Amino acid sequence: MDERKLRTLLTKFRAGKLQEDALLRELRALPFGELEFAKVDHHRALRCGFPEVIYCRGKTTLQIARISREILRHGSDLLATRATPEIHKAIRKVDRRAAWHASARCVTVGGQPPKGKGYVLVVSAGTADIPVAEEARVTAEMLGARVRTLYDVGVAGIHRLLGHRTLIMDARVIVCVAGMEGALASVIGGLVRRPVIAVPTSVGYGANFEGLATLLAMLNSCASGVTTVNIDNGFGAGYSAALITRGDGK
Amino acid sequence: MDERKLRTLLTKFRAGKLQEDALLRELRALPFGELEFAKVDHHRALRCGFPEVIYCRGKTTLQIARISREILRHGSDLLATRATPEIHKAIRKVDRRAAWHASARCVTVGGQPPKGKGYVLVVSAGTADIPVAEEARVTAEMLGARVRTLYDVGVAGIHRLLGHRTLIMDARVIVCVAGMEGALASVIGGLVRRPVIAVPTSVGYGANFEGLATLLAMLNSCASGVTTVNIDNGFGAGYSAALITRGDGK
Amino acid sequence: MDERKLRTLLTKFRAGKLQEDALLRELRALPFGELEFAKVDHHRALRCGFPEVIYCRGKTTLQIARISREILRHGSDLLATRATPEIHKAIRKVDRRAAWHASARCVTVGGQPPKGKGYVLVVSAGTADIPVAEEARVTAEMLGARVRTLYDVGVAGIHRLLGHRTLIMDARVIVCVAGMEGALASVIGGLVRRPVIAVPTSVGYGANFEGLATLLAMLNSCASGVTTVNIDNGFGAGYSAALITRGDGK
Amino acid sequence: MDERKLRTLLTKFRAGKLQEDALLRELRALPFGELEFAKVDHHRALRCGFPEVIYCRGKTTLQIARISREILRHGSDLLATRATPEIHKAIRKVDRRAAWHASARCVTVGGQPPKGKGYVLVVSAGTADIPVAEEARVTAEMLGARVRTLYDVGVAGIHRLLGHRTLIMDARVIVCVAGMEGALASVIGGLVRRPVIAVPTSVGYGANFEGLATLLAMLNSCASGVTTVNIDNGFGAGYSAALITRGDGK
Amino acid sequence: MDERKLRTLLTKFRAGKLQEDALLRELRALPFGELEFAKVDHHRALRCGFPEVIYCRGKTTLQIARISREILRHGSDLLATRATPEIHKAIRKVDRRAAWHASARCVTVGGQPPKGKGYVLVVSAGTADIPVAEEARVTAEMLGARVRTLYDVGVAGIHRLLGHRTLIMDARVIVCVAGMEGALASVIGGLVRRPVIAVPTSVGYGANFEGLATLLAMLNSCASGVTTVNIDNGFGAGYSAALITRGDGK
Amino acid sequence: MDERKLRTLLTKFRAGKLQEDALLRELRALPFGELEFAKVDHHRALRCGFPEVIYCRGKTTLQIARISREILRHGSDLLATRATPEIHKAIRKVDRRAAWHASARCVTVGGQPPKGKGYVLVVSAGTADIPVAEEARVTAEMLGARVRTLYDVGVAGIHRLLGHRTLIMDARVIVCVAGMEGALASVIGGLVRRPVIAVPTSVGYGANFEGLATLLAMLNSCASGVTTVNIDNGFGAGYSAALITRGDGK
Amino acid sequence: MDERKLRTLLTKFRAGKLQEDALLRELRALPFGELEFAKVDHHRALRCGFPEVIYCRGKTTLQIARISREILRHGSDLLATRATPEIHKAIRKVDRRAAWHASARCVTVGGQPPKGKGYVLVVSAGTADIPVAEEARVTAEMLGARVRTLYDVGVAGIHRLLGHRTLIMDARVIVCVAGMEGALASVIGGLVRRPVIAVPTSVGYGANFEGLATLLAMLNSCASGVTTVNIDNGFGAGYSAALITRGDGK
Amino acid sequence: MDERKLRTLLTKFRAGKLQEDALLRELRALPFGELEFAKVDHHRALRCGFPEVIYCRGKTTLQIARISREILRHGSDLLATRATPEIHKAIRKVDRRAAWHASARCVTVGGQPPKGKGYVLVVSAGTADIPVAEEARVTAEMLGARVRTLYDVGVAGIHRLLGHRTLIMDARVIVCVAGMEGALASVIGGLVRRPVIAVPTSVGYGANFEGLATLLAMLNSCASGVTTVNIDNGFGAGYSAALITRGDGK
Repeated sequence: MDERKLRTLLTKFRAGKLQEDALLRELRALPFGELEFAKVDHHRALRCGFPEVIYCRGKTTLQIARISREILRHGSDLLATRATPEIHKAIRKVDRRAAWHASARCVTVGGQPPKGKGYVLVVSAGTADIPVAEEARVTAEMLGARVRTLYDVGVAGIHRLLGHRTLIMDARVIVCVAGMEGALASVIGGLVRRPVIAVPTSVGYGANFEGLATLLAMLNSCASGVTTVNIDNGFGAGYSAALITRGDGK
Repeated sequence: MDERKLRTLLTKFRAGKLQEDALLRELRALPFGELEFAKVDHHRALRCGFPEVIYCRGKTTLQIARISREILRHGSDLLATRATPEIHKAIRKVDRRAAWHASARCVTVGGQPPKGKGYVLVVSAGTADIPVAEEARVTAEMLGARVRTLYDVGVAGIHRLLGHRTLIMDARVIVCVAGMEGALASVIGGLVRRPVIAVPTSVGYGANFEGLATLLAMLNSCASGVTTVNIDNGFGAGYSAALITRGDGK
Repeated sequence: MDERKLRTLLTKFRAGKLQEDALLRELRALPFGELEFAKVDHHRALRCGFPEVIYCRGKTTLQIARISREILRHGSDLLATRATPEIHKAIRKVDRRAAWHASARCVTVGGQPPKGKGYVLVVSAGTADIPVAEEARVTAEMLGARVRTLYDVGVAGIHRLLGHRTLIMDARVIVCVAGMEGALASVIGGLVRRPVIAVPTSVGYGANFEGLATLLAMLNSCASGVTTVNIDNGFGAGYSAALITRGDGK
Repeated sequence: MDERKLRTLLTKFRAGKLQEDALLRELRALPFGELEFAKVDHHRALRCGFPEVIYCRGKTTLQIARISREILRHGSDLLATRATPEIHKAIRKVDRRAAWHASARCVTVGGQPPKGKGYVLVVSAGTADIPVAEEARVTAEMLGARVRTLYDVGVAGIHRLLGHRTLIMDARVIVCVAGMEGALASVIGGLVRRPVIAVPTSVGYGANFEGLATLLAMLNSCASGVTTVNIDNGFGAGYSAALITRGDGK
Repeated sequence: MDERKLRTLLTKFRAGKLQEDALLRELRALPFGELEFAKVDHHRALRCGFPEVIYCRGKTTLQIARISREILRHGSDLLATRATPEIHKAIRKVDRRAAWHASARCVTVGGQPPKGKGYVLVVSAGTADIPVAEEARVTAEMLGARVRTLYDVGVAGIHRLLGHRTLIMDARVIVCVAGMEGALASVIGGLVRRPVIAVPTSVGYGANFEGLATLLAMLNSCASGVTTVNIDNGFGAGYSAALITRGDGK
Repeated sequence: MDERKLRTLLTKFRAGKLQEDALLRELRALPFGELEFAKVDHHRALRCGFPEVIYCRGKTTLQIARISREILRHGSDLLATRATPEIHKAIRKVDRRAAWHASARCVTVGGQPPKGKGYVLVVSAGTADIPVAEEARVTAEMLGARVRTLYDVGVAGIHRLLGHRTLIMDARVIVCVAGMEGALASVIGGLVRRPVIAVPTSVGYGANFEGLATLLAMLNSCASGVTTVNIDNGFGAGYSAALITRGDGK
Repeated sequence: MDERKLRTLLTKFRAGKLQEDALLRELRALPFGELEFAKVDHHRALRCGFPEVIYCRGKTTLQIARISREILRHGSDLLATRATPEIHKAIRKVDRRAAWHASARCVTVGGQPPKGKGYVLVVSAGTADIPVAEEARVTAEMLGARVRTLYDVGVAGIHRLLGHRTLIMDARVIVCVAGMEGALASVIGGLVRRPVIAVPTSVGYGANFEGLATLLAMLNSCASGVTTVNIDNGFGAGYSAALITRGDGK
Repeated sequence: MDERKLRTLLTKFRAGKLQEDALLRELRALPFGELEFAKVDHHRALRCGFPEVIYCRGKTTLQIARISREILRHGSDLLATRATPEIHKAIRKVDRRAAWHASARCVTVGGQPPKGKGYVLVVSAGTADIPVAEEARVTAEMLGARVRTLYDVGVAGIHRLLGHRTLIMDARVIVCVAGMEGALASVIGGLVRRPVIAVPTSVGYGANFEGLATLLAMLNSCASGVTTVNIDNGFGAGYSAALITRGDGK
């Protein structure tokens, strides 16, 4: 219910065409009802262009195709994470623009043009961390962030990392993707004074417990300014990073 | 090795008083050596004004007083977290300006003047979460962020939260402090499109396991844009939040 | 041993046809013996109509068919959870009435007619939680409860949930099915003053640990009136919910 | 804002004493604002008599006294859990009616008169479980439930439990409080066809892990119809049990 | 080196056909060397008839066949646990007597004749626990224990259990196999004054964590006289139970 | 109700001094009621001499004194574990015979005379494990078992252990008490072919997690014939060991 | 930046073709920059002969072949762990010298000649631990260590272990590989006064939790001089062991 | 039993003064008997000078004094870890040489003179880690190792660490003590090619879980050559480090 409709009701009421009880009934429905929806929709318009996201794991290709069709029908952008080539094919049948990002395991349609000057830097420690790093990159780019990447710079060879310190220090926000003991987040957090979003990956074995050891290490980082997301959650990190850069242009 | 010494070496070298090999040997020692220190100090100057932080728990009052003296001697601001009135008294003997923030359990000296227009919103769920929320507030303010607070708005009475939606939606970044099941982070994350930093607190009992349940819930938030810090780490959240607002003025 | 038989013994004893020792031996056998069985069987008759339940996972189709035959031979209703289409076929060969509930992964034969006015409301957060929610629905209906459902109303879009507040508030008992951080249980628990049975699902990844994070969150709900069942245990929640509504008509 | 006030505004508006814009401004504030509160208050009135609850642990006696005064000023009943004799004294200064329930560690003021015929049965396994059981009892009684208790009937002496089977089977809902391996919930759940709310206690040692073993055992109960609350959460169990009995009179 | 060989050496030595130094050299090798083996073999002879055990999981059929051949060549009995029909076939090629125990997943060759009057009672809670229970039975029988079984008597239908109390109370030792919440061990431990060996099984789901919940429950049993073995370790329970009965005839 | 009272009733009944209905009323109360108790008492009589056990932790001295008085009034033996000198004093006021076992932290009154030839061997690894070992010894002796002890023979100095192999190999059952990595249970289990009851103690630090590491190690023992009790549960081990030796004389 | 480029700059500077400030600017960039790389390479040359290691799990055969080619092109030795015969074939196409170590699941090219007199002793408890033990052996040999092995000497048959005590006591460092309860590390640690590196394996079941129980046991070893590596990390243990022997020849 | 005694027996046997059976009985007792003890004692003599260690926690001052007296009476060196000033006083009464190491919380008497050229480097990350680091230093020095220390060089300020790279790279073995996320071990492990012994400390809060997070991180180190000891086990690390340096002089 928008303001116009409300004014119409009031006018009718003052004109005696609407009973007080009927008006009250309408008003009582407002708080949690349609006005709520209207509000949110309006709010949606404001943040227009944010892609709708489909987390593919645990959904059938058929389900994903159907959801994609619904999203795209409303002209929204689309981001499907943890996808497969087969899923890409299915979405492509719905919309020819569907692009496949193999290393990120993502399908995208549309996306925001980059704006502003700051960039998100996505850093990863090992080769096996790249899919999660790429998911972060694709996500952030879909939301209009500029992204630069720096892969394979684990702390066991710290000179490789330090050799890129300008790139690191100039970033607006850093997404740091690592498995094993996740020390990369602390080392980078100690080098820069920019927000660092740490993404633990499930890369490791034995007492790594599918990324739990890495997650705990990152949460316990001795460096200030490091926040953490769930294991393998490249999407969440890229999303937050884009929100951070987005604020700059406001 | 500082710049002056380096220039002296170069002058000697150009004057033929120093062999190329001898100079090279000196230069080769640089990367990890003294020049390193100089560099970092220079870098420190750039980010001048960031307070030095003392985590008081596990340190004696004497140790804290000594560390405070050293920090303040260099004209730096000071933030002591998890402090006690006794610690405050000890720091006050070192510097009369030392202020005591009772609910935040912090001592501060100096701090940055607020700048920019955006504000950090610190939201907390229960009364018992307030010390952690206040720690976040004091930390962010020390770094020059504007901070507004909204306390005691847990999800079990969601209308209280929704009643403040404008305050919530207009924030540059939101620090969300909650214990028990930590649902507040997800609800707020679903309302706004701003970065949300979730702080699990150790408020709870039984299967809460000193905040572990809350931490896991926040890491698993179904809302995009939520990152998490360690249990009770109000400092870390306030620090990251300030870094995020700081970027705006760049 | 029923009362009649006992009186016969006593009569024999008083008539001197039964020795004191022989009577004592009979009496000593009572406490845990036949009388016990008789009692329980009688009790069974009272609660007649409750379906027998087969948890299919870990049983072969052959075993399930055999158990089904035995149950149905006694005229009892039947509920098989975590079933497959193949299992459905096998049970259908035993009894033609066997119905297949695809999304609930259940097979049912018979079931109680709905009675009373109150209804169980089954709410679920995400699409992936639906199988568990449906298991709860089918179970509750088999026990004669009226059930209404409200799916896909997670807290990340809280307006969708609030838009149905009448349906929620009028329920006799609410089964709340959610994965990830399980915040839905707390939000609903805060809205209503009806018993809420929370069902954590194993929907999630990383630090969700197959539903453990969700389970802990629900156990720590800040809302009063929330009880919890095991991960993915839609059956248990539906069963308890039906028992709660059943009491009303007594 | 209640309905009366709203009608007054509308009357003024129709009478031309209030401008449309002014009225709109008032109405716009409704959805999440005062009307919301009014709504909730109205809703509160419906469920009138529910006590306000203070969880005392982690609050100072001063804070508790202040919160108590605020609650009682509005004529509400009051329940303070995990209280101490000292806290009781402090609340008694606020309201002379404040009663002290030593074994339940609760302070109460007011409370609902019992109604209906069904009763909540609170069963506990060991002597050490009694404080939690009593908290459940006091809570349920405050909400107007009839409560009966059966203490010290652990499964290691199962005859004691079975000797009271009539009391058990006739209950409307059973709150089952146990520590150690928590087998009591399963045994009772197998005897009755009433909802059983299991409360694990932190009574145990070694591999009990402060009640975790008990909690897991109860969640895994092989008996249908058992739901579980957090460790030592007698309050939550009593609250849910009262909600269940309350529905009967509807 | 067996006793015979040692006696030959001594005879030679006394006959002057072997020098003292040469004999000493042989003897010096004894303590940790061959004599050690001889000792153990001698000791083995004393406890004659104990089968050699092969835990099949993680070994190839070829490896198992080879180990079987070696064991059987020395005339020892053989027990292979966690076997498959394929493994049975392979062992049968080595020794035609090899018997296949399908429900126990065991292959046996030989075994001790039953002796003494006491019996091991193997009790199991659910149908799914039977393989573990059968492994315990076969193991105990291989070691010469008399075994009786009582399956499918879970605590959710406690009358079934109580109906067999004579069988239970007369056992020399009881092996109690259960999954889920493992309450059976406590109930039986409370009924009898015989050693109870509890075997948690990995039967369960969700917060059962592959038998961990059951294991913890059994370790926390409130009944005295209950000891526990590893999850699904029917072999270990059967072995210990046989050792207990064996002592009686000494 | 004991047998004597029952016979009196029957005599009265046969003599016509008691109506059939009155007798039936008495008998009907039997199954789960008094007869139940009588039965148990009768059964108790059979196993005459078993002490009643009070686990003191978490009980007040007053409560313990009261429970002691009740037990001793019936002429039963008494064992109070995890006691203190203060508790001993309190029990001594109830019964002058109360003995204090300082290292075992137990109070005993009465106890069974030793019988049979076999003995329980209690072995402990470190000095800090002795209280738990002594609790096992006192418990087993109270139940009439002969007990021998072998303390301070950890595996880090395995020669000390091996030096006592005759004592070890001749025991009827071995209680093996160890903290840290608990390797003692495996080494002893490999030496003997007698039941070994392993008791993990909470002696250790860091990743020992209050005995959890020791418990897990013992449950995973590579030696056959090892069963385990809860952390620090010397009582349970001594109790089971006594039950095992007791069977021999049957 | 390599040395040549640096010399060119210096030559230019001395020749007056480069300003001091310009040179300084170049030098200031060194510490973390290209020179860094040069330095490390130089450092690499010093420790020449250390093989490059590829952890194969989670990499495709194609990726492994490509990485192998790059390593071998620089004349380095190569060690690929957790490999398969298929991976061996792929590497062999790159370099004909590629050797396949089946039980160690490793591929090697080149390797250091053995030097010094001390040897690494690799001990393993069970047959199933051999792959991890062999990985340790191959790794240590690649780094130029002499290695001896002693397999299948678990503590359940301690005489087998003690029979080889000379071999054990004479080792320079011992790698001790064991699953289940991992007691072998403590027993060996108690026998020798040499560093012992314990490798927990994931051999076990139930409450072993994929090697966690073994890991905890080893970390809690009561023997001094035992350090531990991650579960199944034969490579890490072999690597550390070789570093220890290597120091001797310095 | 020594060789002389054995020769006497053989002589008697050959002379016919000892029966073959009697000799055999003596020989059969050898393997685990006296010879064992003799052997071990001899071995002890070889490693003479190693200090005896008392872990003070959980022992009374009286007990410690008594153990100290026994150790010192045999002329052995003494090391008491986790001591207090009060314990120091008690040991000093036994032996005037007893030295108190306040920051290491150790008491020492005697100790080995330093030998060899290599040194152990003890590195620690934060001020709070120093007690554990000092325990490692004192332990290693007691065993005759040269020790150098480098404290307060956490990875959040990596330049401080890199500034000391010569000291680090020249060490024979490095003990790396850190809490929080323990990244220091990986960074140092990546810099050097020397064995690194990582010591996780319980310094941290929240999701550090008393050092568990640090321990897991260190076990998962991406750097080769890192082994780990138990949480806070400075003693164990110092002990192993000394064993490693000790081998060099052999």
